Amino acid sequence: MTLLPDWLLTYQRRDLGDDALAGTITAILLIPQALAYALLAGLPPEVGLYASVIPPILYALTGSSRTLAVGPVAVAAVMVAAALGGFAEGDPARALAGGLWLALLSGLFLLLFAFLRLGWLSHFVSHPVLNGFSTGATITIIGTQVPALVGIRLGNQESFLDLLQELLPRLASINGLVLGCGLLTMTLLLLARNQLPGWLQVLGLSRKQAALSARMMPLLLVVGAILLSASLQGEAQMPVVGSIPQGLPAPSLDFLFVPGWQGLVGSALLIALIGYVESLSVARLLALRRRQRIDPDRELLALGVTNIGSAAFGGMPVAGGFARSMVNFDAGARTQLAAIITAGWVALAAFAFTGALAPLPKVVLAAIVVVAVTQLIDLRGIVSTWRYDRGDGLAQLATVLGVLALGIEPGLLLGIGLALAITLRRTSNPHIAVVGRVPGTEHYRNILRHHVVTWPELLLVRVDENLYFANVPQVESRLLALVADHPQAKQLVLILSGVAAIDASGLELLESLEQSLQEAGMQLHLAEVKGPVMDKLQGTHFMRALGADHVHLSTELAVQRLSPTC
Amino acid sequence: MTLLPDWLLTYQRRDLGDDALAGTITAILLIPQALAYALLAGLPPEVGLYASVIPPILYALTGSSRTLAVGPVAVAAVMVAAALGGFAEGDPARALAGGLWLALLSGLFLLLFAFLRLGWLSHFVSHPVLNGFSTGATITIIGTQVPALVGIRLGNQESFLDLLQELLPRLASINGLVLGCGLLTMTLLLLARNQLPGWLQVLGLSRKQAALSARMMPLLLVVGAILLSASLQGEAQMPVVGSIPQGLPAPSLDFLFVPGWQGLVGSALLIALIGYVESLSVARLLALRRRQRIDPDRELLALGVTNIGSAAFGGMPVAGGFARSMVNFDAGARTQLAAIITAGWVALAAFAFTGALAPLPKVVLAAIVVVAVTQLIDLRGIVSTWRYDRGDGLAQLATVLGVLALGIEPGLLLGIGLALAITLRRTSNPHIAVVGRVPGTEHYRNILRHHVVTWPELLLVRVDENLYFANVPQVESRLLALVADHPQAKQLVLILSGVAAIDASGLELLESLEQSLQEAGMQLHLAEVKGPVMDKLQGTHFMRALGADHVHLSTELAVQRLSPTC
Repeated sequence: MTLLPDWLLTYQRRDLGDDALAGTITAILLIPQALAYALLAGLPPEVGLYASVIPPILYALTGSSRTLAVGPVAVAAVMVAAALGGFAEGDPARALAGGLWLALLSGLFLLLFAFLRLGWLSHFVSHPVLNGFSTGATITIIGTQVPALVGIRLGNQESFLDLLQELLPRLASINGLVLGCGLLTMTLLLLARNQLPGWLQVLGLSRKQAALSARMMPLLLVVGAILLSASLQGEAQMPVVGSIPQGLPAPSLDFLFVPGWQGLVGSALLIALIGYVESLSVARLLALRRRQRIDPDRELLALGVTNIGSAAFGGMPVAGGFARSMVNFDAGARTQLAAIITAGWVALAAFAFTGALAPLPKVVLAAIVVVAVTQLIDLRGIVSTWRYDRGDGLAQLATVLGVLALGIEPGLLLGIGLALAITLRRTSNPHIAVVGRVPGTEHYRNILRHHVVTWPELLLVRVDENLYFANVPQVESRLLALVADHPQAKQLVLILSGVAAIDASGLELLESLEQSLQEAGMQLHLAEVKGPVMDKLQGTHFMRALGADHVHLSTELAVQRLSPTC
Repeated sequence: MTLLPDWLLTYQRRDLGDDALAGTITAILLIPQALAYALLAGLPPEVGLYASVIPPILYALTGSSRTLAVGPVAVAAVMVAAALGGFAEGDPARALAGGLWLALLSGLFLLLFAFLRLGWLSHFVSHPVLNGFSTGATITIIGTQVPALVGIRLGNQESFLDLLQELLPRLASINGLVLGCGLLTMTLLLLARNQLPGWLQVLGLSRKQAALSARMMPLLLVVGAILLSASLQGEAQMPVVGSIPQGLPAPSLDFLFVPGWQGLVGSALLIALIGYVESLSVARLLALRRRQRIDPDRELLALGVTNIGSAAFGGMPVAGGFARSMVNFDAGARTQLAAIITAGWVALAAFAFTGALAPLPKVVLAAIVVVAVTQLIDLRGIVSTWRYDRGDGLAQLATVLGVLALGIEPGLLLGIGLALAITLRRTSNPHIAVVGRVPGTEHYRNILRHHVVTWPELLLVRVDENLYFANVPQVESRLLALVADHPQAKQLVLILSGVAAIDASGLELLESLEQSLQEAGMQLHLAEVKGPVMDKLQGTHFMRALGADHVHLSTELAVQRLSPTC
């Protein structure tokens, strides 16, 4: 790892135009989203802007992805909201300090994982669980925007279910004007995303021009809403963003002195995990398209540094966002210079336009959030996962329902735990096959699935799982039952082609099996023992009792040696 | 399952003598142990007697082991003590009610496991963890007996470490007389166990007579100690057992009304798990010797009923004890009638001799506990586990140290958690081998370990682990690295002989691998796909993209088809 990033050392001048355009397009998308996600997290809107300036620059200098757009993201924002619900107790100053602590702590966790080489821990958030979590979180996010969209005020809720219970009885007090504005904004945004590029092409713009122009729509809507709202001068009685401090804050560590930050450690760990897994999968997806490489360890480091920087400069937890990175990539970004240009635009906005943002109705931001996150719901993925693997499907469904009924964090933990439990359950009851020789080959397969040759005095059994503590009792009783069912068998050949590890309990199983067979007048043989397994068995009591001549390189060699009629 | 147990329906008269003798011998061992283990659990001594009458009879009628001796056991007793430490708050009536609740709840958990077929959950207490737990618990038990052995009084401690900290500064106030009695009793018990049978054989007794006579020693010691203590009439100032109510209690559910029993649920679950695992392993060991069968599901049911019965009749949690079952077996027990005869003797003792027990010095019972539990420490097993498998060794060591430093329950949970984490860590970084053909065979092995034939245009790779969410990122990056290292390869054959399951994340891996290879001008092939894996892959998008002609029954067939120079 050099001190300066690869892309900067090898920068090609001809990429500058592409990067500048992509950076600008992304900034147009980012500025309203940054404000909206900060509000979603329960923080002042400017925190979203602060998280969109220094963090992307830090990532650009340290990360291994050339096109990942790092900043505030919807899922992390709703996790922050969930964590702050109990912490802030309605005090905005406490909420702000808590938000910065969450960014700092999740950054520290990522650095810790990088230094202790614990990146593999993130693998335990499986794709189905992540998918279920995104879907559940997205539905929750949409739920949290409903009060702003219909113009009523609600307190903090633990989960989507709680929200529904509070919301439904109060639907009568809807503010029609707010609802109308919200619906109008959402309709315009959806039209801009789905139809507008086509219409513009009909009007004669090129495909690329049309796509770029359509992307201006959210910004135009914001500007239009501000102008309209300002001209009404508060007569419409809509909640507005209000005054935002001008400029970027100086780095500050004042938030460190808030009491009770220890209660945020668990939430920060989850935010770090989810942020890392999301960022990595987006980065991988983009890298694959241009045959670039992503270094998972370097990503841990980069996202750690980025989040700590976000905390120091008054920002919220950040990650690589899916939709924003896609826009950046599709707009032609070649390197992280695009991200630095985006950050420049956001900084400019923070200095120049914050005064103008005050009359912006919150309902417009709520509509932007809702339209942005609907892309994260992947129902087709949920259905196809359920069809392919019932265990994964169950974990996924439990995550969705858990997030909705129990809340963001309990739902995620439920999903991770269930996915693990299902995997363990599966390996604790392994597939065991009696095999025979496929005629004309030296290949041995399940006697129940293939036409094979067998020998009555030879019992060939293949165990399709590592022998470890959780399945040893099962394997032992099923092997003994197989022996009892084959009274003519004189030799039991255990084929270990599917066994990559034998732990101490597995070794005990082999020892007791060898003894039981001997007492029953049978002999135990092993075949196709993998190298690493053999290395460990070598020198054990069991191996001395078994004898080296009872270990065969292949099933075929065992059969040739043991079967008189072969 | 019939209503009456097999052994009773098929009872042979000639077994009666053996059963009667074994039942009597076991009773002689059991009566002092029952008193001692109740005190160890922090309960009145008679609770141990109550747990030794009805529960063994219930087990005899429901269990599948013919020789398992069920009753109070040392490890469960120390777990009860740990659970009651925080619950009883020094109130003996609360302690008693809590002990009965623990028996009831652990019985209910076992029944629940039986009905929901969750017996496999118990497999997650691996042998090394169980071994480490027994060793740690035994050291803790010996520690708890030290105050009684040296004649000082201490409060409740969380762990062995806490006990040491309290004990060491007070060693100056040792009661020399008590210590002397304790050492004398322990010496006599150890002599009786190890040397006496030999001496008696020298005196002309048969081997069996000598062994049986030596087993009378604990009872003789108790009687001798009672006589001596009674004759001194309290002048020696030693703590004694004190008055014990006569007879057995009528069944009662009064204990159900103690407030706060909910706090015992977690402890009861652990007691149920450990009791079940211990009982099952002892029962299996004994059954193996006489070629009998143990039904794990029936054992769940039997131990559940037995513990609920123990609670209803005023007893503590029970399990099958290792030492006691061995004595029962070695003394010649043929069926569970021996256990019923043991129960009869204990009932007789409860009616006839409880008055006589009052002057028994507690130090004698403490000495009996210490000598009994030293058999449970298995240092050799710990060392050999460490040598064979570092992961198991680590989990075992952590369990021992966790029990000693953190306490009984946290130590056990730490061990179970660590064993799982180590297993997951292992499967998350699987063994992947490039293979070639062993000359003169159709067998394919690792090119790094064997002299094999390879073909430059064919890359044969064997993955030795199920493809599941925790290892998919690793496997993907290592496969792509292998492809990059073999620029001449045109075909990648993935040999799935070691893959027994592919979850949804694994399927995604295969899909993206297929695409990446295609874009790189290579083709993906699968070989030796196991039946259950093929069943699931059939009909997926991936399988249609791959094509059935890219799936080969064996590696040899794939090579014959794909290699031009073969």
